[in-house]
Amino acid sequence: MSQTVQQIIEMILAAVPGAPFAQTVDTLKIGDPREPVTGIAVTFLATVEVIEAAIARGANFIITHEPTFYNHLDDVQWLEKDAVYTAKRRLLEDHGMAVWRFHDYLHAMRPDPTMTGMLRALNWADYQDPSNPFVCHLPPRSLETLVAEVKTALGLETVRVVGAGDACERVGILVGAPGGEWQIKVFGQGNVDVLLCGEINEWETNEYVRDALGLGLVKALVVLGHAASEEPGMREMVPWLQARVPEVPVSFVSVGEPFMWR
Amino acid sequence: MSQTVQQIIEMILAAVPGAPFAQTVDTLKIGDPREPVTGIAVTFLATVEVIEAAIARGANFIITHEPTFYNHLDDVQWLEKDAVYTAKRRLLEDHGMAVWRFHDYLHAMRPDPTMTGMLRALNWADYQDPSNPFVCHLPPRSLETLVAEVKTALGLETVRVVGAGDACERVGILVGAPGGEWQIKVFGQGNVDVLLCGEINEWETNEYVRDALGLGLVKALVVLGHAASEEPGMREMVPWLQARVPEVPVSFVSVGEPFMWR
Repeated sequence: MSQTVQQIIEMILAAVPGAPFAQTVDTLKIGDPREPVTGIAVTFLATVEVIEAAIARGANFIITHEPTFYNHLDDVQWLEKDAVYTAKRRLLEDHGMAVWRFHDYLHAMRPDPTMTGMLRALNWADYQDPSNPFVCHLPPRSLETLVAEVKTALGLETVRVVGAGDACERVGILVGAPGGEWQIKVFGQGNVDVLLCGEINEWETNEYVRDALGLGLVKALVVLGHAASEEPGMREMVPWLQARVPEVPVSFVSVGEPFMWR
Repeated sequence: MSQTVQQIIEMILAAVPGAPFAQTVDTLKIGDPREPVTGIAVTFLATVEVIEAAIARGANFIITHEPTFYNHLDDVQWLEKDAVYTAKRRLLEDHGMAVWRFHDYLHAMRPDPTMTGMLRALNWADYQDPSNPFVCHLPPRSLETLVAEVKTALGLETVRVVGAGDACERVGILVGAPGGEWQIKVFGQGNVDVLLCGEINEWETNEYVRDALGLGLVKALVVLGHAASEEPGMREMVPWLQARVPEVPVSFVSVGEPFMWR
């Protein structure tokens, strides 16, 4: 007898320090927790294409890092008459799919798999600063070289860059969208030359770096994209789950590049 | 005798329905409200470069749409030891500059100058839907043509695009970063083919449009950038101010393109 959705969620929570949390967005968004799992699809965000790929692979359980219904809390009240929402919901229901968000608990694992995954994708694990896990100390290279390397390693077409640097050595990594205060503190307290980040608010970190440059300080920011910054972390969970539920097929479904750059 | 910073702020508020507001981010961020104004620099965001340009023009009052210190409330407690913040603050103090934020009050003006400015920049004022000021009804054109036109009109190097469209007719415009719920409602309630927006959260509107496409609906999103979407609105305030304080030189300072696209 295969494990149920609920049993797999509980198995994951058993590996998270402090879990279960009183407050978390990591809830079952749709589906029956008692359903036996035929297969798990791990993804950054359960788009319609991801759901269809999961169905095609025979999976009935999607573990997603980001929301399914276009807002952080997956509040759906305001979407009840929306054609996209109702059709997506019907697709999930018609195929008996369960979707669980794995966001707060993922970032609470030690080490955080999003950092482990990014270091693996960049092949930088040896450069991680022992005193600050969000900083890598690299042999110096120009910002241009650094950006080209990161794009190749992560398979990105275009990234957004602010700033400058002839000898980038201390590189901060802050995936996702933790907000400007966290990102800016990596420049100050982490004393980095460059920050690689997932997503920004455009009145925050990019303008901080632009001001640094205007004041004669050499700093840079590379905005990878939210999905690009966290897919490597979710990929880490595939072998992790395979080792713990060997009877269930587990696979990763990429959301691909969200944007066309025109 | 020239008008003071405070007198000019009060003159603006007199034109805003419902002003002054009990809660607003539109406060004097630095400077003496009793200071006579030698010149006004209007901008999207008071970067170090913008401040230097204002000083060079002899202006001692900057009216900015977005924050000066990298967060929506211009809270500076967490920045007190930050080298960029302290140097920027010193630059402003050394030159006796006043900086006032003009955000909530700008969007409360009727019509909202950010919409008027965008329609003027795009030369679309004749297409505005009389029943919904955030929608334009254009002669149909392909998404590709629409994007090229918008880029030329706004002087943009690169925009981010999601979706498709062979015959884009109903085009929504929502400047700034009002959040996914507002943006997504323009697709539903405004029934638009395309939304032009300033900034997104990458787990919201872009994924909604990607899902629409996955479900066979023809929708598109063009992410202009926050600055690109609101500079035309702030530009509208230059002749508006000039007409009301003819004795004070008023000029616009552009923040330029915030990003290098690599």
